[in-house]
Amino acid sequence: MTKAAGIDVVGIGNAIVDVLSHCEDSFLEAEGLPKGSMTLIELDRAAELYGRMGPAIEMSGGAAANSMVGVASFGSRAAYIGKVRADELGEIFAHDIRAAGVRFDVPPAPDGPETARSHILVTPDAHRTMSTYLGAAVELGPEDVDTDLVASSSILYLEGYLWDKPRAKESFRVAMAAAHAAGRRVSLTLSDSFCVERHLAEFRALVEDDVDLLFANEEEIFALTDTRDLSAAVAAVRGRSEIVVITRSEHGSMVVTADETVEVPAVAVEQLVDTTGAGDLYAAGFLHGLARGAALAECATLGSRAAAEVISHLGARPQVDLSTLAGASV
Amino acid sequence: MTKAAGIDVVGIGNAIVDVLSHCEDSFLEAEGLPKGSMTLIELDRAAELYGRMGPAIEMSGGAAANSMVGVASFGSRAAYIGKVRADELGEIFAHDIRAAGVRFDVPPAPDGPETARSHILVTPDAHRTMSTYLGAAVELGPEDVDTDLVASSSILYLEGYLWDKPRAKESFRVAMAAAHAAGRRVSLTLSDSFCVERHLAEFRALVEDDVDLLFANEEEIFALTDTRDLSAAVAAVRGRSEIVVITRSEHGSMVVTADETVEVPAVAVEQLVDTTGAGDLYAAGFLHGLARGAALAECATLGSRAAAEVISHLGARPQVDLSTLAGASV
Repeated sequence: MTKAAGIDVVGIGNAIVDVLSHCEDSFLEAEGLPKGSMTLIELDRAAELYGRMGPAIEMSGGAAANSMVGVASFGSRAAYIGKVRADELGEIFAHDIRAAGVRFDVPPAPDGPETARSHILVTPDAHRTMSTYLGAAVELGPEDVDTDLVASSSILYLEGYLWDKPRAKESFRVAMAAAHAAGRRVSLTLSDSFCVERHLAEFRALVEDDVDLLFANEEEIFALTDTRDLSAAVAAVRGRSEIVVITRSEHGSMVVTADETVEVPAVAVEQLVDTTGAGDLYAAGFLHGLARGAALAECATLGSRAAAEVISHLGARPQVDLSTLAGASV
Repeated sequence: MTKAAGIDVVGIGNAIVDVLSHCEDSFLEAEGLPKGSMTLIELDRAAELYGRMGPAIEMSGGAAANSMVGVASFGSRAAYIGKVRADELGEIFAHDIRAAGVRFDVPPAPDGPETARSHILVTPDAHRTMSTYLGAAVELGPEDVDTDLVASSSILYLEGYLWDKPRAKESFRVAMAAAHAAGRRVSLTLSDSFCVERHLAEFRALVEDDVDLLFANEEEIFALTDTRDLSAAVAAVRGRSEIVVITRSEHGSMVVTADETVEVPAVAVEQLVDTTGAGDLYAAGFLHGLARGAALAECATLGSRAAAEVISHLGARPQVDLSTLAGASV
């Protein structure tokens, strides 16, 4: 092992700066954006949409990056692999993730597409709808994956969003191989039901062959199993990955293994402000628990607590020290 | 008059993107930053400070720009004159102020120093301490001042922060001359007590000769009048400008004219979160009231309401439609 030794979770994903703004439902309709979805857009569409959006705030985001910030906030050691360009948004992304205590060593691209940004529209019901220009993020290639880092990290965490371009897929394969060769756990979040539908056969093969721990929400697990019946979906995925975690918003979450199903309630929030980052922070709590050797029910509870924190304010990164939510045991 | 006709307030100031982060008091001490102050820094110091700051969020700011956004939110017609560079932060600044309904036509500088940013550290007591790299903002020159726009705007609003470099001062003079020639009102905010101390004789001359409406907080009016006794300060400024407004945080505000002193209480806030923008939004409410022909006490009350809104959340721009705070009369 190298200097990388001692990382609990290393995440790989699209390195994105979020551009957050409030809007009415009618704006989503006028722009043809299905509420709650993530749409990939090109630079000209991004400029057009941005021009019509209200005043915004900019915050570092990216699903796996949000999760790694959460893992670090819980007190575990986290690292991140993702690609920005050497531009102002790239500097913002790199600063924020490092300032949150996450190791981030991937050099920025000196040229090429701009740092990715996601235009996140938050409607009065607190739901978020994302339009993402991936830019530099999808320039991530296998050469950016520090296999020593992956091999020495207890858990590898992969963001399904990245599963699109050939070089990004190759990065996933390189990372998964390095993790498995070192006897590490590989986890994947399905990220988005449209994303699953676009690459259904490949995601099914990944889950079957490569993934030890799968995160999905109901829509994503329905897409993966081609049913809209939760019991049928659970039956279909049971044992495909060693652990399958299904998040169900206010209905809590289920942890499905070959032998058991553990159900954990959601943590109530005083005021639901913005659902951005709910899944990412749930994963953070679960991964922290797992890295600390906690029982599955406790992992899920930590996930629920972190998700509750992040949906009670604007933005996808925690605003409190999550270790204060962990309790005495982990 | 030209197409510019019909603007209520045009503001001129440093066009800045705020980089907001929380910190402990000990961080300010370690960095040698006096709490509540605004320190001008160079690019290398900005990079150094940013590197040591925690995760941040980026929001458009700039004192006069915040005020113009507030004026527009109240329902008056606002315009802004300030300089950004054609870079990512410059795009963010231009987008946000236009999306807030403020007219902003100054072309970005194609090269030269980067768009200005202010590193704003918010301590647990909700006070803000600013370290500002002015970059492109101080490239503003007289050629950027649309004198037709100024001449056709009821009130010109100037930010004292800009009173530093010769070209910026010349921009002020050009704007003030255009406003006065058209029989318009000239208002100035002193911005910062250190700023007043640096240019004391010039600020005194401005107040005496050119400014019809002066905004200052207690520290600034003390600096201007070289006393720390409020009654003495009030006596010293009375009648120097037609209207002198002194904001006193939780003690409310005073409006001083040759004939009278109007005192208005502060509006209580449920939770004080971040004082950034309090003075800027007070000015917005006051200017909106004045543009609508409201009595001075009502102008001050509108200022107090807008200030209360902005200090109850992070960031210096309003998060609600301020017209809902204005009541039936204005």
